[in-house]
Amino acid sequence: MYLLYYWPDIQGRGEFVRLALEEAGAKYRDVAREPGRGSGITAMMKMLDAGAVKRPAFAPPVLKAGKLLIGQTVNILHFLGARHGLAPADMAGQLWTQQLQLTIADFVAEVHDTHHPVAAMLYYEDQKKEAKRRAADFLQNRVPKFLGYFEKILTRNPRGMHYLAGRKISYADLSAFQIVAGLSYAFPKSAARQARKFRHVFALHARIQERERIAAYLTSGRRIPFNNDGIFRHYPELDAA
Amino acid sequence: MYLLYYWPDIQGRGEFVRLALEEAGAKYRDVAREPGRGSGITAMMKMLDAGAVKRPAFAPPVLKAGKLLIGQTVNILHFLGARHGLAPADMAGQLWTQQLQLTIADFVAEVHDTHHPVAAMLYYEDQKKEAKRRAADFLQNRVPKFLGYFEKILTRNPRGMHYLAGRKISYADLSAFQIVAGLSYAFPKSAARQARKFRHVFALHARIQERERIAAYLTSGRRIPFNNDGIFRHYPELDAA
Repeated sequence: MYLLYYWPDIQGRGEFVRLALEEAGAKYRDVAREPGRGSGITAMMKMLDAGAVKRPAFAPPVLKAGKLLIGQTVNILHFLGARHGLAPADMAGQLWTQQLQLTIADFVAEVHDTHHPVAAMLYYEDQKKEAKRRAADFLQNRVPKFLGYFEKILTRNPRGMHYLAGRKISYADLSAFQIVAGLSYAFPKSAARQARKFRHVFALHARIQERERIAAYLTSGRRIPFNNDGIFRHYPELDAA
Repeated sequence: MYLLYYWPDIQGRGEFVRLALEEAGAKYRDVAREPGRGSGITAMMKMLDAGAVKRPAFAPPVLKAGKLLIGQTVNILHFLGARHGLAPADMAGQLWTQQLQLTIADFVAEVHDTHHPVAAMLYYEDQKKEAKRRAADFLQNRVPKFLGYFEKILTRNPRGMHYLAGRKISYADLSAFQIVAGLSYAFPKSAARQARKFRHVFALHARIQERERIAAYLTSGRRIPFNNDGIFRHYPELDAA
């Protein structure tokens, strides 16, 4: 039984972990989403900051696996990937999968900054002008660069174009799914254009969506809907016509 | 013999790798800094983009170790850490060190965006106004949050306050050194104030600087001086009085 600590009302970075746990069929508690003593945001904050925690994380998500307390999304996925067959078994394959995930993490940070280019602590409304400039560059230059990269990785995979790393699904594929889902929510017009260009990436998204456990998860109450408190936010004025 | 591929004129993200290689006493070629055929930026670009490369990286740095081609700074350090004793030997310690490095990587991305808050491809001069707002928030809120975190990690380390992870030096300590060095170059006024507040972090910087191999490296021609093409840039107008 894993304990996941993450913000209860957004998909955010925690969602990359949730998707891996769901695909693995792992038992986990999404602690901050549970009511009652020892749960909720209070429990999450305690895990981050209590003096008794010897290796506190900088920010959620945090995963508790037995005595291990693991922070940083990429790190958690690296751990889960090896444990649940969501990464190749050899060291070279594990490094490669983590490398892809690190690139996805870089992309996620850039997505966040489209609506918060000045300061994470300020409201979107207080940095709207800057957000318009940044989002325009993001959609025009950064999205094609990242999606083009993953398109290349898929088409060059010597084990076939179905997955990013090797012959089988990995946590990087689940995260790529989430990125396409997020872009489609946040920037629907732009994403429709990208879909015609980066067909293998969008086909990967469709393939993941149809997997039995992922499909069940996506229609369950455990999947928090996209909303404008998360990383992927739909502000129509930031989307490119 | 390792081959490192990184931009030849800046410290950038490659510097975190260089510091680990130097502390390990590892033999490496800094390929893009070498003249002649098979070297220079051309060789770096080829490694990133040639059709024959099955697992191309998104961006430099890239490290070639035998047949392995490893991209993403955190990934390279994870690999080198295990190989050269620059991380604890147990899995929990390796995850913890990587977690710290991922947090440092997040910080580095924020440093970069102080001078490029709108678009990496635009000149600083074209986003100066936005940079002023972002840098002010960075120095006021983000730097204390990150340095305060590492200060806490040092003081809570059950193996003593000398290093971030365990009793011995790790690649995360080398990277923390680089962050303090970079902040002191880019934002000297602000860094002088931070130094009084986050004494253990700055003491770590001083301790690393005096290590035999690091000291030799820093005074060698292999260490590229800080400059305003890198991640840490000194624009006096962005520093806080």
